[in-house]
Amino acid sequence: MDKRPIGVFDSGLGGLTAVAEIMRTLPGEEIVYFGDTARVPYGTRSKETIIRYAEEDVEFLLSFDIKAIIVACGTVSSVALPVMGEKYDISVIGVVKPASRAAALATKNKKIGIIGTTATIKSRSYECEILTNIPDAEIYTAPCPLFVPLVENGRVDPDDVVLYTMVEEYLAPIKAAGVDTLIMGCTHYPIIERAIAKFMGEEVTLVNPGEAAVRYLKEESEIEKNEGEHGSYKFFVSDDKEGFLENASKFLGGKLSGEVSLHIVGK
Amino acid sequence: MDKRPIGVFDSGLGGLTAVAEIMRTLPGEEIVYFGDTARVPYGTRSKETIIRYAEEDVEFLLSFDIKAIIVACGTVSSVALPVMGEKYDISVIGVVKPASRAAALATKNKKIGIIGTTATIKSRSYECEILTNIPDAEIYTAPCPLFVPLVENGRVDPDDVVLYTMVEEYLAPIKAAGVDTLIMGCTHYPIIERAIAKFMGEEVTLVNPGEAAVRYLKEESEIEKNEGEHGSYKFFVSDDKEGFLENASKFLGGKLSGEVSLHIVGK
Repeated sequence: MDKRPIGVFDSGLGGLTAVAEIMRTLPGEEIVYFGDTARVPYGTRSKETIIRYAEEDVEFLLSFDIKAIIVACGTVSSVALPVMGEKYDISVIGVVKPASRAAALATKNKKIGIIGTTATIKSRSYECEILTNIPDAEIYTAPCPLFVPLVENGRVDPDDVVLYTMVEEYLAPIKAAGVDTLIMGCTHYPIIERAIAKFMGEEVTLVNPGEAAVRYLKEESEIEKNEGEHGSYKFFVSDDKEGFLENASKFLGGKLSGEVSLHIVGK
Repeated sequence: MDKRPIGVFDSGLGGLTAVAEIMRTLPGEEIVYFGDTARVPYGTRSKETIIRYAEEDVEFLLSFDIKAIIVACGTVSSVALPVMGEKYDISVIGVVKPASRAAALATKNKKIGIIGTTATIKSRSYECEILTNIPDAEIYTAPCPLFVPLVENGRVDPDDVVLYTMVEEYLAPIKAAGVDTLIMGCTHYPIIERAIAKFMGEEVTLVNPGEAAVRYLKEESEIEKNEGEHGSYKFFVSDDKEGFLENASKFLGGKLSGEVSLHIVGK
C-alpha cells in the first residue's frame, strides 16, 4: 500500500473532472491538485509556452511527496507531455492515451470524432494514438476554442442558445461524417456533455478524458493503491481562490472538501 | 520636439485600437507596443495578479527610451494604475479618466452606462471618475466577460446570433435604464461596436476608451509631440507571434506595418 498522494494538474478548473473520478472510484487516495488559474487558458497559446507552463506545474507538484501525476488537461497532454516525456522518476499519466484507447474500444464503425482546444487539435495527438490502435480508423476533428470560456462563464445549459449554437457549429461536420464515438478532448467539455449529447444523439459514445485517465491509473498502471478509508485533499491555484471556491462544485459534481491555497507562478 | 517613442501596452490585442488612433491622429509618433499574449486575459484575474502583470509590462516598456505610456487596457487602467500611481518618471496615461471625461461631456440626461471586464466593473473605476465630473449622474454598469473571447474568436458580425444574444443579455438592463451614453470600457469592445450600436440604438453615444486616451495625450498632456513625417512602429508579444500577425489588422483597421518580436514574461 502506497499512502503518498496523487498529483493532478490542469490550466484551471477542468482537471477537477478527473479529481471527481478519483474520489468516486479510488476513495482512499490522497490528492494534491494544482490549477494554474493565473495563466488559464493554455489551449490558445504556443507550444513553447504550454511546455514552459507545464514544466513549472509538474515541478510544483513534485515538491510534494507524490506517487504519480495525472495531467488532467487535454492541451498539456497533447503538446507538452510528449516532450517532457520520461524526464521524471514517477509515472506521469496524460489523458490522450487513455481516452484514445477508450475510443478505439468503443467504436464499431471505426469513425471517431475528436474535439479539443486549438493547440490540442493542431498537435494531432489523439489522432496518432487512435491510429496506432486502429490503423484504418476514419478520424474527424474540430477545434472548439469557445467551449472553455463558455463553461467558465457558466453557460452549460443544453437549452442555452449561445452554447447550443456553438455546439452545432463546431460539431456539425463531425456529426455529418457519421462517427459513432466522440472524444471530448478537453477536461472542461464533460461539463457540457448534455449539450453535446443532445446534438450528437444517444447512439454516439462520448469519451470523458479525465475519467479515462483515472480508469487507466486504476486498472493498468503499476501504482500501488492507497486502500485507506477516505483520502484527504489539498487544492492549490495560482490566482483567484474565491473564484475557485465558487465554481469548483460544478466540476466536481459535488461540494469541495479540503483546503484551498494560493501558489504564485512565474515570479 | 520629442522624438522618443510612445509606449502602449495591453493584455493582448485590444490595445491596438489605441495604436490605430495614434497612427491616425499623431502620424509622426514612434510607437513601441507590448501585448501580453502569454497571460491574456487579465479581466478575469485577481487584483494582485493584475498589478503584478502590469508592473512587469511597464518595466519592459521602460527598457526603451520612451516619453510616455498609454495603458491601453481597461482592466489595468481600472485595477493597477491607481496603485502603481506616480511611481514612474514619465506620464502613464490610462483609459479610465479620458473615457469618463468624454462620457461626462457627451451625456445630456446624465444617465451613463459602463461595460467592461469583471475586474473593471468590480473596481468601480469609471463610475468614481464620472461622479467627480457629474456628482448627480445615474450610472448603470454590466460586466461582459464573454466579449473578449468572442472578439478573439472573430465573432464580431452584428448578425451573429451568438454575439448578438450576449449583447442583448449584457446590455438589456442598461438600455432599459435609458442611458444616452455608453462607455465601452475595454479596448476589445470597439471591435464589436456595430453590434453594440445596433442594440443600443443610434441616439446613444458610444465612447471608445483607446481613442479617448489618445485624444487626451494629444490635447491635454504636456508631452512634446514628434512632428516627424511618419513614425516607425515596434510590436512585442509574449506569445504566439503568428496569431498576432493574423489578427492585428482587425484591431488596427488596416495592415500591420512594423516589426513583431517575442518578449518572454514571468521567467
